[in-house]
Amino acid sequence: MTFKVLAAAKAAALDKELMSTCGYSIDQLMELAGLSVAQSVFKAFPPSNYHNCIILCGPGNNGGDGLVAARHLKLFGYKDLKVYYPRPSSKPLFLNLEKQLQQFKIDVIKTDDEQFTQLKTQLHHSDLIVDALFGFSFHPPMRAPFDRIIEEMLKVQSEEGKKIIAVDIPSGWDVNEGPNNEQVADYQPEVLVSLTAPKPAALKLKKGSKHYWGGRFISNEIAERWGIEIPEYEGVDETVEIN
Amino acid sequence: MTFKVLAAAKAAALDKELMSTCGYSIDQLMELAGLSVAQSVFKAFPPSNYHNCIILCGPGNNGGDGLVAARHLKLFGYKDLKVYYPRPSSKPLFLNLEKQLQQFKIDVIKTDDEQFTQLKTQLHHSDLIVDALFGFSFHPPMRAPFDRIIEEMLKVQSEEGKKIIAVDIPSGWDVNEGPNNEQVADYQPEVLVSLTAPKPAALKLKKGSKHYWGGRFISNEIAERWGIEIPEYEGVDETVEIN
Repeated sequence: MTFKVLAAAKAAALDKELMSTCGYSIDQLMELAGLSVAQSVFKAFPPSNYHNCIILCGPGNNGGDGLVAARHLKLFGYKDLKVYYPRPSSKPLFLNLEKQLQQFKIDVIKTDDEQFTQLKTQLHHSDLIVDALFGFSFHPPMRAPFDRIIEEMLKVQSEEGKKIIAVDIPSGWDVNEGPNNEQVADYQPEVLVSLTAPKPAALKLKKGSKHYWGGRFISNEIAERWGIEIPEYEGVDETVEIN
Repeated sequence: MTFKVLAAAKAAALDKELMSTCGYSIDQLMELAGLSVAQSVFKAFPPSNYHNCIILCGPGNNGGDGLVAARHLKLFGYKDLKVYYPRPSSKPLFLNLEKQLQQFKIDVIKTDDEQFTQLKTQLHHSDLIVDALFGFSFHPPMRAPFDRIIEEMLKVQSEEGKKIIAVDIPSGWDVNEGPNNEQVADYQPEVLVSLTAPKPAALKLKKGSKHYWGGRFISNEIAERWGIEIPEYEGVDETVEIN
């Protein structure tokens, strides 16, 4: 795969620029990012073949992208959707994203038992797993309950062939180094959706995985200044497969 | 054409519900509405054949949809875009939408001379005109400078064959009655993009015009409760042609 990557510190600084001088609100960026995640899932695993999907949402913006994606997935025809969101944010934007999901009658699971029985049941029931737990600002080690959530997710992937779509970064990977710690050493998603631009970790994606580039909101001027080579999107798509 | 319509008062009340109990922010709704407008323009007049587009933006939310659409049109490959926005809103959201356009180097014309020379030049130069002046909350009569803007727009439509894409309602039309006043008696757009749901005026669209339905953010529960028959969207499209 040949694409230019954006290191962690640069990705954070660019995000900041998008939301200051560029005039984007986080509502807008998250909406477009989440939409591009949902479009990527649709391209890789269309609802004609895959009905059941669980979206694992973390406490930060990566989780917010997942909440947005869940709504669009419902609109795109995925019938059986669950959101697993054990550490819900209390920020107004996130509370509103939850309200929107209620409107679409998408179950949001916010608590769990000690044995993660509910999570296990839902993972077993799902064809697809969207990993929106942590993004490019994650630093190891993975703490509870997320260490266990990832463990369960990887278990159904290897034992039951469930498909994982990772949002921006496979959760637990180091944004620059990839799966460099024990907890996620064997974690490889079937699909990665890089948002804004691929991070260095994307280079550690194993051969045969699909890689999409989403978040179509960068001007040529910004791309040039930040050394991003924007891919050729097709038509009105908000995501594009790169390889 | 057979579709259920949403009367003006109901459309306003539904908008209010979307932004309260449903949890949507205006940033989100405007982003999705503007995106669906841009997708409709792409479907009706693809950038492979139509390069130049002027977006006429009014002072309210219809204008905001136009500002969002302009950005997506640029990303979709329309090379020569102008935004004509003579009564810019001072609300933060709108100032930010302008900032985003700056980032994409899209000219926003906010003042004009008494003879509307600049507007005339730009209309003459454009293949496409997006009419985002007024939406469903408009009440006649059309005041200056918008009376004159519409006059000039209709002139290049009839004399030079320019194509008009109207956002939600052809500007100046009564939302329930259609083109029932002298100023717009002869105004028929080539394309209408109804947002959320068609208003009664959409029934007055002349035969042969294209009619798109955009704004894919309504749950089945809301649709049922408000008597809206959501059309069948294709795949991940945010707009669909209805006829």
